[in-house]
Amino acid sequence: MFTILNGDNPFQRKIPYILLTNGGGVAEHDRCKKLSTQLGIPINPQQYCQAHTILKKFSNEYSDKNVLVMGGKLDAVRQVAQGYGYHKAYTTLDVLVWNPSVWPFHTLSDAEKATTQAVDFSKTPISAIFVYHDPRNWALDIQVACDVIQSEGIIGGPYVPLDKQKKPVDLIFCNPDLIWKADFDRPRIGQGGFKVAFQAVFKALTGAEYPHVQYGKPSTETYRYASEVLQGWIHTLYGPGNDAPHLYMVGDNPESDIAGANAAKWSSILVNTGVYDPTQGSPTHLPTHYAEDVEVAVKWAIEQHLCTQPNVKSVTTQFM
Amino acid sequence: MFTILNGDNPFQRKIPYILLTNGGGVAEHDRCKKLSTQLGIPINPQQYCQAHTILKKFSNEYSDKNVLVMGGKLDAVRQVAQGYGYHKAYTTLDVLVWNPSVWPFHTLSDAEKATTQAVDFSKTPISAIFVYHDPRNWALDIQVACDVIQSEGIIGGPYVPLDKQKKPVDLIFCNPDLIWKADFDRPRIGQGGFKVAFQAVFKALTGAEYPHVQYGKPSTETYRYASEVLQGWIHTLYGPGNDAPHLYMVGDNPESDIAGANAAKWSSILVNTGVYDPTQGSPTHLPTHYAEDVEVAVKWAIEQHLCTQPNVKSVTTQFM
Repeated sequence: MFTILNGDNPFQRKIPYILLTNGGGVAEHDRCKKLSTQLGIPINPQQYCQAHTILKKFSNEYSDKNVLVMGGKLDAVRQVAQGYGYHKAYTTLDVLVWNPSVWPFHTLSDAEKATTQAVDFSKTPISAIFVYHDPRNWALDIQVACDVIQSEGIIGGPYVPLDKQKKPVDLIFCNPDLIWKADFDRPRIGQGGFKVAFQAVFKALTGAEYPHVQYGKPSTETYRYASEVLQGWIHTLYGPGNDAPHLYMVGDNPESDIAGANAAKWSSILVNTGVYDPTQGSPTHLPTHYAEDVEVAVKWAIEQHLCTQPNVKSVTTQFM
Repeated sequence: MFTILNGDNPFQRKIPYILLTNGGGVAEHDRCKKLSTQLGIPINPQQYCQAHTILKKFSNEYSDKNVLVMGGKLDAVRQVAQGYGYHKAYTTLDVLVWNPSVWPFHTLSDAEKATTQAVDFSKTPISAIFVYHDPRNWALDIQVACDVIQSEGIIGGPYVPLDKQKKPVDLIFCNPDLIWKADFDRPRIGQGGFKVAFQAVFKALTGAEYPHVQYGKPSTETYRYASEVLQGWIHTLYGPGNDAPHLYMVGDNPESDIAGANAAKWSSILVNTGVYDPTQGSPTHLPTHYAEDVEVAVKWAIEQHLCTQPNVKSVTTQFM
């Protein structure tokens, strides 16, 4: 399929593409290195957009603000955040090292301790909470998020009613998926489940859910960002001066891939090899086109596009 | 205060009492041993009622059924359950050892592994889930609870719609407290928070919350059980033939201690030394009487009772 995109097609044209995923938890560079080996073709980090890649956009705004980053193994997402230019990114394990009584039901392991930074959170107002990936300790992360939000950023500080807060804490989730397909027979609860759990507990404590920003497929922000990434990649490949590309999304998940592509006015192609099962009836969101698998989808998009608009550079965006 | 109950009062009467708490996670025997040392007076396990002590009542029903027990450190609550006569009690760590892909975001530590039992859960239908104490891994426990309930007990088995299930899995929580007073400046999220999180995720997955049983203060079942425990203790102390005692509840928490006592038609005394703060206005549930602290409360109850009903054996039930 990648060889087709790389020019092995009847039009002998290279089709710029990116990979767009709701996964994450490691730096794009590291993930692409692994992917390139697995797929046997080079995948450039400029072609790769995971759930939290969009946070690069806001690195100026948060570069010197104290933020909490949640999810992933140990402090892996802190390293991702630092790579994006968030210089004061802290983890809930840092919070626990500072004051173990914040969450008395977890004792830090040596491996966890080794990743922590010494921070006095009583003097470190947190501006934002970014949920990069699935939190490993839901209870700790929900507790700390509730602490930070209720006290305007100072963990353990006096509570300030939400309607009286001068600088409410920003809360950003990167992947809305309630479930995802893992190795187990039945789908597993995803980061969307963590969000549901957090909001329910926060509501029980305060009476209301907390306003938040949601990125990841199918959010429009993520599709808009992905189209910028793709144009950047075209620019890298061919230099400036290219028209806005026509975009195709190939995906297996009607609720995220197809819904998002349709809302962003991309063409959408639904395949049968993942979440969507054609024997279970119509998908919840109708695609522009159906295809057996990704290869068939890519072939269809190329023919469709280059036969009807032979002079326009065409682009396929590919799901992960 | 305990010396007053033990006879050092103007009436020179021993007043039978029990301790009633929403805490738990260890066997009554062990907890009482520690308490006796801390308080400097012997506390008999027959006088001690924690959130999950009521589960002793149902040990015949579940003695040979497969049940999951959640909460507490490692397999401590399995040991409590076995002490109650639940012979086939399993933990979510057992589930993870059986199949690590059930929850891919947690790798068992050696200490955790050492507490596990080898069970083939694909052939072990679970009849009930008992949440004894605050789960240490919310995500794992919510995932496994959703798996068990949706598939009529077989983890990884096909889902059966709830209205078509022949033997729905019983779900029992032992402590409803949303928050509790720990060492940290602000109250911490309790087992009630775990229940809220579970039900929200379950609803997101299935469209409805799951019917469950709730024990612990202020549930009427727990107050009824506590009065049985107290009568048993009176029986132990004085032999058979005593009338039903008049019951006093001394507590600091209007929502649990006072609400439950009032609903059970016990006399209730609210003290100022814990959750309830008289400077914050009226309590959410009005007690029979207010007192500065537990000692004052106990003295008042003794005087009140023995002066008005000198021939009736009087009893104070004491919060923890």
